[in-house]
Amino acid sequence: MDEDLRKLAAQLPDGAVLTDPDLVEGYRRDWAKDPDAGRPLAVVRASCTADVQAVLRWASARRVPVVPRGAGSGLSGGATAVDGGLVLTTERMRRIDVDPVTRTAVVQPGLLNAEVKKAVGEHGLWYPPDPSSFEICSIGGNAATNAGGLCCVKYGVTTDYVLGLEVVLADGTAVRLGGPRLKDSAGLSLTKLFVGSEGTLGIITEVIVRLLPAQPPASTVVASFATVEDATAAILSVTRAMRPAMLEFMDRASIGAVEDALKMGLDRSAHAMLIAQSDSPGADRARETEFIAEAFARHHAPEVFATDDQEEGEAFTAARRFAIPAVERLGTLLLEDVGVPVPSLPDLILGIEEIARRREVLVAVIAHAGDGNTHPLIVHDPLDAAETARANAAFGEIMDLAISLGGTITGEHGVGRLKKAWLPDQVGPDVMELTRRIKTALDPDHLLNPGAVL
Amino acid sequence: MDEDLRKLAAQLPDGAVLTDPDLVEGYRRDWAKDPDAGRPLAVVRASCTADVQAVLRWASARRVPVVPRGAGSGLSGGATAVDGGLVLTTERMRRIDVDPVTRTAVVQPGLLNAEVKKAVGEHGLWYPPDPSSFEICSIGGNAATNAGGLCCVKYGVTTDYVLGLEVVLADGTAVRLGGPRLKDSAGLSLTKLFVGSEGTLGIITEVIVRLLPAQPPASTVVASFATVEDATAAILSVTRAMRPAMLEFMDRASIGAVEDALKMGLDRSAHAMLIAQSDSPGADRARETEFIAEAFARHHAPEVFATDDQEEGEAFTAARRFAIPAVERLGTLLLEDVGVPVPSLPDLILGIEEIARRREVLVAVIAHAGDGNTHPLIVHDPLDAAETARANAAFGEIMDLAISLGGTITGEHGVGRLKKAWLPDQVGPDVMELTRRIKTALDPDHLLNPGAVL
Repeated sequence: MDEDLRKLAAQLPDGAVLTDPDLVEGYRRDWAKDPDAGRPLAVVRASCTADVQAVLRWASARRVPVVPRGAGSGLSGGATAVDGGLVLTTERMRRIDVDPVTRTAVVQPGLLNAEVKKAVGEHGLWYPPDPSSFEICSIGGNAATNAGGLCCVKYGVTTDYVLGLEVVLADGTAVRLGGPRLKDSAGLSLTKLFVGSEGTLGIITEVIVRLLPAQPPASTVVASFATVEDATAAILSVTRAMRPAMLEFMDRASIGAVEDALKMGLDRSAHAMLIAQSDSPGADRARETEFIAEAFARHHAPEVFATDDQEEGEAFTAARRFAIPAVERLGTLLLEDVGVPVPSLPDLILGIEEIARRREVLVAVIAHAGDGNTHPLIVHDPLDAAETARANAAFGEIMDLAISLGGTITGEHGVGRLKKAWLPDQVGPDVMELTRRIKTALDPDHLLNPGAVL
Repeated sequence: MDEDLRKLAAQLPDGAVLTDPDLVEGYRRDWAKDPDAGRPLAVVRASCTADVQAVLRWASARRVPVVPRGAGSGLSGGATAVDGGLVLTTERMRRIDVDPVTRTAVVQPGLLNAEVKKAVGEHGLWYPPDPSSFEICSIGGNAATNAGGLCCVKYGVTTDYVLGLEVVLADGTAVRLGGPRLKDSAGLSLTKLFVGSEGTLGIITEVIVRLLPAQPPASTVVASFATVEDATAAILSVTRAMRPAMLEFMDRASIGAVEDALKMGLDRSAHAMLIAQSDSPGADRARETEFIAEAFARHHAPEVFATDDQEEGEAFTAARRFAIPAVERLGTLLLEDVGVPVPSLPDLILGIEEIARRREVLVAVIAHAGDGNTHPLIVHDPLDAAETARANAAFGEIMDLAISLGGTITGEHGVGRLKKAWLPDQVGPDVMELTRRIKTALDPDHLLNPGAVL
């Protein structure tokens, strides 16, 4: 450890600064596994807001870039290390205070989403946002990417649940934004600006989340379809008439991969499978599940399975969540996250099939179909240079397709480093210029997560 | 009209630029009726985004300040005219396109909140945010102030329903932010930054709102209380156990004023009245209204009235909404909008009573009690200088009290010009500095709504 780093380490708890190459290696990449990840000076494990402030004061005085990192489960390379920088991980910041009276919780960023759900559940409360990775992703990362999940189609995304933040700015200043109040029009909506800013404007050290009463029990409806067209038509029939609590899509490749792994009796001959839920109270739940089942049957689902049993329903949800690791057994993944307005979902899914055919790569598609957010999983062998080139081409073409359909290059994962080349195509030069002006106003030396988003 | 203004008028539809002093007079103030309102050069009535761009290009070339204005129903002086500036009104921009399939609507800023509700209602849909002024306030103003209302306790505030915006920046550039997508993590959350920015960062020319299925029928529970303490205890009993669809408070002065005006048989001897609603489906509605009625009775309400009849319920809601004009018959109002975390509501309301006693002014209190947002109405005679001074002192002391209770100086009206002196006390110098940096990055000459917020 050089003299300068020693000065930083002296201000932090013992063991906070890691320079051992073997230990540092584990922090160079997030789940996007960027092969071009840089070699950081050190990894710093902050224990509290004051630690984060000390790191940023040290770094800004020396113009050392800082890449913030939650649980490292990001899929867009938002936490890829940069050469000569610091990786600042919040994994040790894990406190939570639940206030059942105001139905809010103050959470440090390192707590996992599942741990937040569990802690508030003990008070009969519910934190809705549920990324598929909820067991391994952190609430800080969720806020930094404005993460989504399966229940968002009815319950909204992370920003809808963030009432306040503590954020450390590039120069080490800590600011408190918002608070445990449903209504607050005092000054600019800075809380909401930091949500989804992917660590480029400041480092989130505390999140105040709004909670709901415990989710009522959900009923589940599952069906397979002989064609993708039937399945997407069924999706539109449902979403135009009601708000399901979940409406998930899996294509043939995903069904096969999950069935290989879990052996739960899914129909491998089907070209699509839909899993829907209703959690409306009282008679509405039965009415909604019946409506969904009828819509599935009307669009030629040979068999529709419906259950009020929570565990049976959860088995299907778990199968859907397992699709990414299951498909990953087939090869390395390039993980997409494109979204479109729901009526364009058929065009997006069929267009992705066409790209896969043309580029001769396997693309397994899973989707939060009810909100138009899809995850095409592009499978390739990184040792096969030609296939990797075709996979990369497909990755870009899928984003181009989403943009052409009025959609977004990322519904819930963030832009990170993997998708930033496409951001200008989506938002245009004027919005990019606006983004740069805000970035420069808040982080004049561009030390915070340089290379991400911009 | 001088030569320079003629150049602007030539780019706009006939009659867009008003300089006749009698006509201009009607645009110098919003409902805050600021006696110090400036004398603008002209009022410009924009008909489309291109008009707004032309105005801002003209104004920025000449460094002429521009005060944007929706329906002029703001209560914090956010649309008070400034000397030598333009008032830019969006009242003529009134188009709406409802898309029932994506459950979104694209709305121009001049459409009134009630008109948005009506237009989407024709498609069986619902736009929840419901300021008491919903019949006279515009959706553009709602977005600019992040307006709230009565149903927010369950359904959230304006920002929760804004998926995208078109905004014209200080230099006349028009940008599109977000879109009709529930999920979008592409780039900074600029949409949410502009919501609540009170015209200081750009002028909203289009709002893309998220809609819900039509609200289910609501049941209403009403009770009077002999003491404010009983009423606030009843509020906490309800909010800690469930989420009502509405939970409104009126104090003795408000009850009396409304009864004077509407003669509907309210109990003038009561010191507080609560009006609550549940709109949960099925058996939950009966269970919730019963719970509320029991909570009211347990806190010594001598009589609890409950009804499933929509019209009967609406009569009480209308009475509550009429409180501001009713109290206004007693004198000129200074209208407060302070909010606190719900458990501090008793301290806030009792503290306001104490301030009124000490300052010897009448303060009628109405509140969106379920979310801790109160509207103390400070009554005074502007011709009585001593009383006006005492009213102004009370106005500031109420904000000081809210801040000391961990609350906000404005829950839903915005800071405007009336409350800006208190904003630094609430958010602190570092957040003010952050706010200034963003303001300067987006509007370097501070031409947009100068004197508001900052």
